[in-house]
Amino acid sequence: MPVIEQNSSHATLINVFTVEPDRAQELTDLLSHATAEVMQHLPGFRSASIHKSTDRTRVVNYAQWDSAAAFFAMQADPAAREHMSAAAEIASAFDPHLYTVESVHQK
Amino acid sequence: MPVIEQNSSHATLINVFTVEPDRAQELTDLLSHATAEVMQHLPGFRSASIHKSTDRTRVVNYAQWDSAAAFFAMQADPAAREHMSAAAEIASAFDPHLYTVESVHQK
Repeated sequence: MPVIEQNSSHATLINVFTVEPDRAQELTDLLSHATAEVMQHLPGFRSASIHKSTDRTRVVNYAQWDSAAAFFAMQADPAAREHMSAAAEIASAFDPHLYTVESVHQK
Repeated sequence: MPVIEQNSSHATLINVFTVEPDRAQELTDLLSHATAEVMQHLPGFRSASIHKSTDRTRVVNYAQWDSAAAFFAMQADPAAREHMSAAAEIASAFDPHLYTVESVHQK
């Protein structure tokens, strides 16, 4: 299972999709399917975890790639682009950014 | 270290802060400090991981609580509210939602 750790060498993508509640499950399923079919087979993929908000207005992909370069290469892959376009059509907005883990606190 | 897993009983909070780039580090530090000082001592806290986007326009808190009820109780705690207000003043927007983990894919 994916682990969140500080000072890791990998790149974290957090993509927040805004969605109409009645399309939240459809978007969740599309992202899970695209990850299983395409994304996880691309170079540098480490993990992707698809989250759905309990109010069904947001879907979040929390993904880990070996590097920012691997993430950008994925974005240029034709099959990946096709799935990303399909997700963008279901969502009303999306907000992908690459992140570093700055601190981790655990009980 | 925090682990992302499907079908977990816990509640996942993802709070996305939009921030001016020159205040991203200040907000990151405030959230890390608030978690260490207050949040992680509250009942039901499991983990919090503070992320800063590489473009410095977003800060994300990815947190795990035992339950939604524990998260809502935290929001009513006076010390926690004080820290949340301070974070809200630094950020230009924030977008907290509770999530379930719908699928996890790992290489």
